[in-house]
Amino acid sequence: MTTQQLIKQIQKKKSFLCIGLDVDLKKIPKHLLDKDDPIFAFNKAIIDATHHLCVAYKPNTAFYEAYGLKGWKALEKTINYLNEKHPEIFTIADAKRGDIGNTSTMYAKAFFEDLDFDSITVAPYMGKDSIEPFLAFNNKHTILLALTSNQGAFDFQTKKIEEKELYKQVLETSKTWVNSEQLMYVVGATKAEYFSEIRKIIPHSFLLVPGVGAQGGDLQEVCKYGMNANVGLLINSSRGIIYASNKTDFAEASTIKAKKLQQQMQLILKDL
Amino acid sequence: MTTQQLIKQIQKKKSFLCIGLDVDLKKIPKHLLDKDDPIFAFNKAIIDATHHLCVAYKPNTAFYEAYGLKGWKALEKTINYLNEKHPEIFTIADAKRGDIGNTSTMYAKAFFEDLDFDSITVAPYMGKDSIEPFLAFNNKHTILLALTSNQGAFDFQTKKIEEKELYKQVLETSKTWVNSEQLMYVVGATKAEYFSEIRKIIPHSFLLVPGVGAQGGDLQEVCKYGMNANVGLLINSSRGIIYASNKTDFAEASTIKAKKLQQQMQLILKDL
Repeated sequence: MTTQQLIKQIQKKKSFLCIGLDVDLKKIPKHLLDKDDPIFAFNKAIIDATHHLCVAYKPNTAFYEAYGLKGWKALEKTINYLNEKHPEIFTIADAKRGDIGNTSTMYAKAFFEDLDFDSITVAPYMGKDSIEPFLAFNNKHTILLALTSNQGAFDFQTKKIEEKELYKQVLETSKTWVNSEQLMYVVGATKAEYFSEIRKIIPHSFLLVPGVGAQGGDLQEVCKYGMNANVGLLINSSRGIIYASNKTDFAEASTIKAKKLQQQMQLILKDL
Repeated sequence: MTTQQLIKQIQKKKSFLCIGLDVDLKKIPKHLLDKDDPIFAFNKAIIDATHHLCVAYKPNTAFYEAYGLKGWKALEKTINYLNEKHPEIFTIADAKRGDIGNTSTMYAKAFFEDLDFDSITVAPYMGKDSIEPFLAFNNKHTILLALTSNQGAFDFQTKKIEEKELYKQVLETSKTWVNSEQLMYVVGATKAEYFSEIRKIIPHSFLLVPGVGAQGGDLQEVCKYGMNANVGLLINSSRGIIYASNKTDFAEASTIKAKKLQQQMQLILKDL
């Protein structure tokens, strides 16, 4: 998918919501556990109930790998279902990968070819030659961890490296990489005060923003400092939407939660 | 496996060799492609041919994920084969994971419970709460990326952060984390001159060292500056051993290459 197609979808749906599909078998409604593939059954119901309200889905691979083969199978079925039923929706493999060149190429093949995701999240620690193999894929997007939403972000990311915080070095250095126009960035919503600093370095890129909702980030604040002329934001909510109810009404409950966020976004977009 | 068991194995086998199982279907002998599961058939042959010469195996997960479900299945069969046939061998999931706390817990479950590896490689960018969930598992080891063997390592890792290189900050900060005695570290062999600096910060930890062989690192140099009283090194070689031949003699060829490295190690250990 091209960035233009993503922008068009945002305008059409009046939403820049991304829904995180982080399926934990301990948290999904009990009646689903009797199904052949409870993880996929859950995802399918959530997708059917929310696809008109969001522009992206983001399965976090950890939640699938934890269930071994059957988890990986459920991930495959989920991305196939999304690509067949809703090809207009932007898909994100939240995998946080990154390795030496030839190995990153294998990860890129895994997520861009075998599973056919539109994008993948990657970690910057290993630098240029660990990220460029992902950027070599046409119309695929590489989402670089910049400033994450957890407490540990303050361990290294906000420390000053040669007079500049590490996350800013990551942003600036990443702009010099081949095909860097295919980069997006993870920026945690719990750090809204950083957004204006970040926009000085990467005004045009899309930001994937976790941390609104369960982790305490504020949508208005994020939009105030992080939005650009093309919106340039994908706001992720996982637990707040997919676990809105753990009863048989879980899908309807997810629609209500997603709708609430979409309506807030529609208001914000009107003022843009 | 405890660290003491690993040290005993090193002493017994007179080897601190780790063999990387990075299986690329384009590189393995053609006659294996007719097998039911070529990846596992290849791994099994390499393991049978080299297990007496090495103390650890390290499958890189990228090479399995690239083949989707059948790749994941081959990884599962490989770790099960190792645990059943050679329970004394240290197993490393070279997965380079790391995410916010509850997600890292899912990764830890995937690799420590579902797949029952002894250890996993993790990336430090997201800090303390992304790593401690791995350290919570008893007798499992978490191998933190410190200084990697690729060119991109110079993008951030060797940059000065508050007057100290980032990789040194990572080493020092990691020592403050809960259960940090279960940490090991990835240190690339191509940077032998850094080993003495690293040993000043973490004298006792095991270092997993990629980059000897194909990537140009020198075994003697690494041992000179990196070894401690318990050896404290696992030297990884992947391509140099497993792709020693792409004909029907590939297993015998891998024995010869592994034997050569083991003998060099035996000489070095004699002088210890």
